[in-house]
Amino acid sequence: MQIYADNAATTKMSEAAIRTMTEYMQTWYGNPSSLYRIGQRAKEKLEEARAEIAGVINAEPREIIFTSGGSEADNQALLTAALNGKKKGKTHIISSAFEHHAILHTLKKLEKNGFEVTLLPVHENGIVRTDELEAAIREDTCLVTIMTANNEIGTIQPVSEIGAICRKHGIVFHTDAVQAVGHLPIDVKAQNIDMLSASAHKFHGPKGVGFLYVRKGILIQNLIEGGAQERGKRAGTENLPGIAAMAEALKESVADMEKKNAHMAEIRDYLIRGLSGIPHSALNGDAEQRLPGNVNFSFEGIEGESILILLDMRGISASSGSACTSGALDPSHVLLAIGRIHDVAHGSLRLSIGEDITKEEADHIIGSVREVVEHLRSFSPVWRDLTEGKKEFILK
Amino acid sequence: MQIYADNAATTKMSEAAIRTMTEYMQTWYGNPSSLYRIGQRAKEKLEEARAEIAGVINAEPREIIFTSGGSEADNQALLTAALNGKKKGKTHIISSAFEHHAILHTLKKLEKNGFEVTLLPVHENGIVRTDELEAAIREDTCLVTIMTANNEIGTIQPVSEIGAICRKHGIVFHTDAVQAVGHLPIDVKAQNIDMLSASAHKFHGPKGVGFLYVRKGILIQNLIEGGAQERGKRAGTENLPGIAAMAEALKESVADMEKKNAHMAEIRDYLIRGLSGIPHSALNGDAEQRLPGNVNFSFEGIEGESILILLDMRGISASSGSACTSGALDPSHVLLAIGRIHDVAHGSLRLSIGEDITKEEADHIIGSVREVVEHLRSFSPVWRDLTEGKKEFILK
Repeated sequence: MQIYADNAATTKMSEAAIRTMTEYMQTWYGNPSSLYRIGQRAKEKLEEARAEIAGVINAEPREIIFTSGGSEADNQALLTAALNGKKKGKTHIISSAFEHHAILHTLKKLEKNGFEVTLLPVHENGIVRTDELEAAIREDTCLVTIMTANNEIGTIQPVSEIGAICRKHGIVFHTDAVQAVGHLPIDVKAQNIDMLSASAHKFHGPKGVGFLYVRKGILIQNLIEGGAQERGKRAGTENLPGIAAMAEALKESVADMEKKNAHMAEIRDYLIRGLSGIPHSALNGDAEQRLPGNVNFSFEGIEGESILILLDMRGISASSGSACTSGALDPSHVLLAIGRIHDVAHGSLRLSIGEDITKEEADHIIGSVREVVEHLRSFSPVWRDLTEGKKEFILK
Repeated sequence: MQIYADNAATTKMSEAAIRTMTEYMQTWYGNPSSLYRIGQRAKEKLEEARAEIAGVINAEPREIIFTSGGSEADNQALLTAALNGKKKGKTHIISSAFEHHAILHTLKKLEKNGFEVTLLPVHENGIVRTDELEAAIREDTCLVTIMTANNEIGTIQPVSEIGAICRKHGIVFHTDAVQAVGHLPIDVKAQNIDMLSASAHKFHGPKGVGFLYVRKGILIQNLIEGGAQERGKRAGTENLPGIAAMAEALKESVADMEKKNAHMAEIRDYLIRGLSGIPHSALNGDAEQRLPGNVNFSFEGIEGESILILLDMRGISASSGSACTSGALDPSHVLLAIGRIHDVAHGSLRLSIGEDITKEEADHIIGSVREVVEHLRSFSPVWRDLTEGKKEFILK
């Protein structure tokens, strides 16, 4: 049994998206910025894709800028808010402690350039509190950037409430919705979202393409300078095959989202119940306010990397933290942010299931994780210390 | 007869590159930064592609960073040299007047941030003079950035000589080789190139992917912050299908480069001879030191856009300036840089032929251009003024 349970890292492209990509590579190779017909048709196709994508999040087509992915979109969003803020003397930014590194590292860079950053806590449940957000707002706050759903523990943030607060205070609100677009309903108008980042390969589209939504009226600042593509706001020949495949994948993803999400949430809860039976383990993040596909557990006394390798031998692809930081020895900043201490954060497992997951597969996952955890604990010195009472258990 | 003569704007993907892309989208979807096998295999494939690409320009694999294309690579190269230079108090940059906008616009941004930029003239032949480069070098020069071949008029710059001069003076040398990689032999070691930008879709690879070569020893500065991909120097999930297809396309492009170039140069010269027969016309840029696929002509008394539309009706896809600035009313900065005055720069035509061009196609192009130019002149008020002696001809 082969189970791909790392959809938060990347998804397999849908067949329709691959077909679109291939067709466009073969047929629509004209440069959309050219005057001749094959270029102009490419331009039309580009605008079709833009309108489709805009429609999904209730934006205007002209509010969508195509990028090379979520990281670039995040970088450009923060640069935009920061430069616009600076012009008005506003150099304070509010974010959260468990944002993606594309946000946190960019904020670090801004701090070095005179900006002040407040990172809101996300508490044990992995959710930002709106009263704490409101309390953090200052006269010179130019941006609030809070992700829609966390990439490691899947907790969903109160985006609509955050949007309303920001709108009330006249502050630009950006959300990194890389884990949410194609998976959760999004309405940028109703939710008062000013900027939003998305990445195609997280919803069965191609890698290397994403988009940034910027509400009209906000002056977009360039991250990549050059040609006049994307109304002069993002240089580089338009990746039309990738963009068209992204539109196709997004259309598919949202087509029967409710039904798919209900199924995934059922399996997710089944997995959570099954894994909760493992002693000295704990679910990370809120059990309810989380992505339908996300299960994240900590197991005391073992190393996350070893779990992954042994699960892989049982046909299960999963991860500990996010793929973007794998290879790093530091424990997940997300798990630390929800109060897991280093030891426990190290022994964590993220299962991000896909819409085609079955109950049989879930059973195989539960059985395999139980086996693997038991096996690893059987020769873990930390576990021995814990069971012999030389150390105290942290997880119940 | 359908002739695609705008390969400088973008090329049609090769069948092998499309096959690679499709295969990778279907099979190698794992996140290369993951620990499980399908992720690790993706990582291996990524490094295979890196080694292949590095080999083509005689670089080390670790000197290659994958980007979303040429514009991003140019932006990152300039940022890298600028930030590294600033640390040493060196804030002077030398470039040329006819660089791609990805360079020129980034230089403008750097000027606003305290850098001083010297743009070397490119003279009537469209070639930078090394004595003028040497004269422009100052104590505080931190970067020389000169393109390998111009995207509009195809003139090839004395890269090896520039590299030698920069090395002698201890100045970082970057070259935007977007028009050259896959088309001209490049050896970064022999040519003393410190940084080089390339774009896959210019050599029959996919859009949305490119690379930046940075000689080891140079501290790379991040343009896109986030995850730890590309050794922490370029965040974003690796676009493995695009990268593998780029490697495939590059391998193909350089496989029989000499033979292809000889054929293209022959047809190019045939086109130049044929079009030179049109009265009051002129080839733009040096006739010898130019890309084998580039023909660029100015025709007095007419508008470039009208030429393109009428050629398109005759099955020929061509362009006036670069695709990146189409839609702009300004005449090409490249043509102005080689001394064409506004009127003449407006009436220009770039034909960038592919390796499969035939003599019959060249005849069709020559015949069509003649017809179109005559036709447009027949109702051009400017042409009437010229022929009636009310205005003086600029082109012989």
